[in-house]
Amino acid sequence: MDCIFCKILNGEIPASKVYEDDNVLAFLDIMPATPKKGHVIVIPKKHYEMLEDVSDDDLTALILVVKKVQKGILKWAEGTNIFQNNGKSSGQIVNHVHFHIVPRFEGDGVKLAESETFQYQDSEMVEMQEKIKKLLNESSTF
Amino acid sequence: MDCIFCKILNGEIPASKVYEDDNVLAFLDIMPATPKKGHVIVIPKKHYEMLEDVSDDDLTALILVVKKVQKGILKWAEGTNIFQNNGKSSGQIVNHVHFHIVPRFEGDGVKLAESETFQYQDSEMVEMQEKIKKLLNESSTF
Repeated sequence: MDCIFCKILNGEIPASKVYEDDNVLAFLDIMPATPKKGHVIVIPKKHYEMLEDVSDDDLTALILVVKKVQKGILKWAEGTNIFQNNGKSSGQIVNHVHFHIVPRFEGDGVKLAESETFQYQDSEMVEMQEKIKKLLNESSTF
Repeated sequence: MDCIFCKILNGEIPASKVYEDDNVLAFLDIMPATPKKGHVIVIPKKHYEMLEDVSDDDLTALILVVKKVQKGILKWAEGTNIFQNNGKSSGQIVNHVHFHIVPRFEGDGVKLAESETFQYQDSEMVEMQEKIKKLLNESSTF
């Protein structure tokens, strides 16, 4: 297994851990996405590639730690961006599911979660709604 | 209450709903962050401002719907960016906690979740680790 996060979990690679329990680990991203730094990554200890792969129990444990860490960070920072990428086209680099928590401050210049926006034309929105509803109905129950 | 998402929940404002249960609603963002569109917003029905405010039960319900919706979208898209912003400085516009799910395709040009990165110098990383651990310990138990 050539997963860098599994290597952190195994102790093969060091990490600046900020929280750990039986199911979840949180540590500093070594390449913080803000000049203020303090960017934290939260991972399940079990290796899953994408969000859809994570068991409901592990996902619950994971999001409650994300909540806890972001609550702690908000005692220092003014805001947070939380993001989680699935698939190479999304920018996912490490194929072990992870949430990013980025501390934010007014005027910090961070461009995360900002993007050009687009407009639905004519019947596009109804068509997209029906398409996604159909895709959801095809998913297995959760 | 002047919350646009509460108005959607109350039926005062229309929305292109793609999923709904007792605790959670998912609908199309009218300003999708990708030219491919299909950008979905997932919200708890109860009004909470930020992630840290959401009850553990509602947060669990919310993230399981995020998982379900992104699983559906991945039958169409190649990837997803999931993000959730807390506080004005983060770009949060609607003060009702919400997750964004943005479908991604190779070469779609979307810049979400991409950002300049920075380097820790000298003892900065150890200092930041201790700072965040301290902030977490000050948080109430979860």
